[in-house]
Amino acid sequence: MPNDVLRDYLIAPEPGAVRLTRRVVGTDHTGAETEISVVEERPLTIFLNSQEIVTAMTIGDYPEYLAVGFLRNQGMLRDDDVVTKVEYDDDLEVVVVRTERQTSYEEKVKKKTRTSGCAVGTVFGDMMEGLDKVVLPQVELRTSWLYALAHKINTTPSLYLEAGAIHGTVLCQEDRPLVYMEDVGRHNAVDKIAGWIFQEGVGPEDKILYTTGRLTSEMVIKTALMGIPVLASRSGFTAWGVEIARQVGLTCIGRMRGKRFVCLAGEERLVRDMDPDSVPEESCKNRRKSAE
Amino acid sequence: MPNDVLRDYLIAPEPGAVRLTRRVVGTDHTGAETEISVVEERPLTIFLNSQEIVTAMTIGDYPEYLAVGFLRNQGMLRDDDVVTKVEYDDDLEVVVVRTERQTSYEEKVKKKTRTSGCAVGTVFGDMMEGLDKVVLPQVELRTSWLYALAHKINTTPSLYLEAGAIHGTVLCQEDRPLVYMEDVGRHNAVDKIAGWIFQEGVGPEDKILYTTGRLTSEMVIKTALMGIPVLASRSGFTAWGVEIARQVGLTCIGRMRGKRFVCLAGEERLVRDMDPDSVPEESCKNRRKSAE
Repeated sequence: MPNDVLRDYLIAPEPGAVRLTRRVVGTDHTGAETEISVVEERPLTIFLNSQEIVTAMTIGDYPEYLAVGFLRNQGMLRDDDVVTKVEYDDDLEVVVVRTERQTSYEEKVKKKTRTSGCAVGTVFGDMMEGLDKVVLPQVELRTSWLYALAHKINTTPSLYLEAGAIHGTVLCQEDRPLVYMEDVGRHNAVDKIAGWIFQEGVGPEDKILYTTGRLTSEMVIKTALMGIPVLASRSGFTAWGVEIARQVGLTCIGRMRGKRFVCLAGEERLVRDMDPDSVPEESCKNRRKSAE
Repeated sequence: MPNDVLRDYLIAPEPGAVRLTRRVVGTDHTGAETEISVVEERPLTIFLNSQEIVTAMTIGDYPEYLAVGFLRNQGMLRDDDVVTKVEYDDDLEVVVVRTERQTSYEEKVKKKTRTSGCAVGTVFGDMMEGLDKVVLPQVELRTSWLYALAHKINTTPSLYLEAGAIHGTVLCQEDRPLVYMEDVGRHNAVDKIAGWIFQEGVGPEDKILYTTGRLTSEMVIKTALMGIPVLASRSGFTAWGVEIARQVGLTCIGRMRGKRFVCLAGEERLVRDMDPDSVPEESCKNRRKSAE
């Protein structure tokens, strides 16, 4: 059964990985001793060539993808940049991304916006500027894919199911989840996806991004800048997120639970090929509780 | 009934406030037109005297408390600082905090840590340093208070119940919720509480901080630096959060749902004065879904 769920994945969560969780002893509501799994959280300092850019608090897996994706999503790595090397030092908790082009982001590193999510170092004006040039393809989005994805993702063995308190982002194609990244910071999970796309040279135009997080302005902007035409979530929307999605023509699906969902932008891509009443309601037990 | 729930509050959420949510039209899973409430998200740029510190994405209420609390939690406003004026300009979306002392945080503004939560501008080394001096009082924490607080907070009319996609943080005393702040960024909600405490000159030693968010290292550090001895949450823990809580002697209660909870730090403050079996389980319907 788990094998069947994992069939489509190129990268799936590794809930059993030793470095990602820790067993901690405490007491429960009855006063009895209890031991639970909690997720790790460690600093990772990202350098672009010789410049220190940011220190991220992360669960610690895929540091190379996280670094490259962070720099991409901050506009510090351009489409045409050639990454010559990504060096990760486990002891120093440092990752260095080296490029052919000489880079300098003194000004950019100084200005910053604390987003809802919330990433550091995001220069909001800059991000909005890049949005002008975004043209998202008019692909179709079948509701049968959405329902299949939600079911597969929710039943995939994950750190969330093992230890909770973690966010997930999944890159999907049609009804297949391909790359499922988790992190204590939800923007880290998205950045790891962006890093994977950039490093592997994968086309975004036929992809769907599924997130456990809210559809905030920053999430919408990141998805659009990655060139992915569809963003879906179990969680809700912010007003500005919806506004930007409508401006750039991104399809935004939120509040996906059981047969229910709401589409607040990009409705024209939706192909309703499945009767919602044939979708089973989520049971109370299987409902994904909050990573928050 | 709502009046009864609201009795203890000095500041309660205002789910009906016009500026905080917007009605947005979309389609639902059946293809029918639907109109839902979504929370606002707008930029607020915080100045300390003449220096621009950060732009936060916020829902927009209590900008003065947010600014003061942010600066406090970043260590830029000291215990003995006198705030002479807090000026908020609604049109410019700017808030300026003025102090008697001349301030300059050029270095601090340049360095930054992207936390899991995740705040900008947090200089991690600095924050950990301040922790050495923290001595949290050995007050008692009755389990009857925890259960009463969870029930009251979950049934308080809120933006969360109205529109979802939002985090809440509540400053409490014994079994009484006092100040309930919500925001699209969960650290903004905590910062608004910190701003309220600083501006109103309220003592933290007999307080409890309840959050809908995870008990990450940053959340634990902020609570300890505010001098509050107890941090409670519906959500889970990170390993580093637990480690720091144990070091500073902060009581950490997580995974509070119905009669259940787990205590992973500061167990010695707990007074088990209530039979957990007398606490009703949360119904599936009332269960707080994720703000994530």
